[in-house]
Amino acid sequence: MRYEESIIEGRNAVTEAIRSGRSIDRIFVLDGCNDGPVSTIKREAKKRDIMVRFVTKERLDQISESGKHQGVIAYAASYDYAQVEDILQAAKDKGEDPFIFLLDGIEDPHNLGAIIRTANQVGAHGVIIPKNRAVGLTATVAKTSAGALNYVPVAKVTNLTRCMEDLKKEGLWFVCADMEGELMYRQNLKGSIGLVIGSEGEGVSRLVKEHCDLTAAIPMKGDIDSLNASVAAGVLGYEILRQREFA
Amino acid sequence: MRYEESIIEGRNAVTEAIRSGRSIDRIFVLDGCNDGPVSTIKREAKKRDIMVRFVTKERLDQISESGKHQGVIAYAASYDYAQVEDILQAAKDKGEDPFIFLLDGIEDPHNLGAIIRTANQVGAHGVIIPKNRAVGLTATVAKTSAGALNYVPVAKVTNLTRCMEDLKKEGLWFVCADMEGELMYRQNLKGSIGLVIGSEGEGVSRLVKEHCDLTAAIPMKGDIDSLNASVAAGVLGYEILRQREFA
Repeated sequence: MRYEESIIEGRNAVTEAIRSGRSIDRIFVLDGCNDGPVSTIKREAKKRDIMVRFVTKERLDQISESGKHQGVIAYAASYDYAQVEDILQAAKDKGEDPFIFLLDGIEDPHNLGAIIRTANQVGAHGVIIPKNRAVGLTATVAKTSAGALNYVPVAKVTNLTRCMEDLKKEGLWFVCADMEGELMYRQNLKGSIGLVIGSEGEGVSRLVKEHCDLTAAIPMKGDIDSLNASVAAGVLGYEILRQREFA
Repeated sequence: MRYEESIIEGRNAVTEAIRSGRSIDRIFVLDGCNDGPVSTIKREAKKRDIMVRFVTKERLDQISESGKHQGVIAYAASYDYAQVEDILQAAKDKGEDPFIFLLDGIEDPHNLGAIIRTANQVGAHGVIIPKNRAVGLTATVAKTSAGALNYVPVAKVTNLTRCMEDLKKEGLWFVCADMEGELMYRQNLKGSIGLVIGSEGEGVSRLVKEHCDLTAAIPMKGDIDSLNASVAAGVLGYEILRQREFA
């Protein structure tokens, strides 16, 4: 496995881990704790866009493995996040037009795992996730991906729209699912493409949607207004594959 | 909501609930408990194909709302399961060829909820689940379905293959996803159809597969060998919708 998660406990250990540039998913801090060392951790975390959550002592005790957390616990991924360049290179190595999933704030690790699995099966070259307001590569994600995480490079970017602008210079077009759009079967989804999937609650955010070149509607014949995020990613991802290879 | 779940605690209450024919999802019994009343409950549950699980006292105490479970707690669904006939009637009322999802042992309530949601969106007339070795309509399923459970009739049958035989007499063809099958785009999936989805771990069971008329392969370009069950249901369900309405 390319992925392992570890827990870092205690003020010094967490401060060190942040400063070393290690990939930290999130930090739990005792609610109300505001002394010097904890303020430093919060400041350093903010600088690096690491999510900080305030929790009760009971919660920290529950997470703690050593029993000596001093009010601070960090979850560090030892998973190797890829660079966006690695994903483009993977496409080039295969002699294929790039096909990339961009996830605009998926919060449920089961959904992220299922989407990474789908990305592998539709032949996508990688997945891009944002640093903030989204789940990272946790143990649950690795498990739900059913091994796909070992094959699909996942890159984490600070700014999703800037990343889209950069990728447009590389010739990518972006499509997002939206009920207001043209029916997906009638869109041309061939060529270098980025598939944008919105979050479970909010869908695709306004700014990201404005950066999309196409909005494709998945037909919805039902009485409710959307699909589960990983199902939507599967349906639109497979429509792209169908057009690329079977249409 | 057509669905609510309630907890029934204590030996008499649970025995009464079983005998009244109320729809009970599962019964938790204190491990090792084997006296007269508990034996009666186990026997009655067996007669009606209700799942019985043996758990620790701590677990029972945790589930209990009254604190007086006497070693027995039942989960009763007040959700109205539909009859298979209701599903056929729903198709007839719309003047459409029946389109039914059959789930061969889905165990994860999140998957079941997501599949019910998908069934609604692709215009299926109902979902059929087996009584045994599968999750029923629990509170999590209702929640994950995002409201679709209120619109999609779900029937629970004792014997899935017998149900398939009955539906064949009504003109239905059955298709299941299988990597060995012909590519789904090349299968004719129009007309009266039953879509069979296998369980998360085992896929479609041998006997059910033998009762299928078609096996359709979802293209898999990846390094792993399957998709998440609810994603697979979405991809194949949407291919059926595409052929029915957009091809």
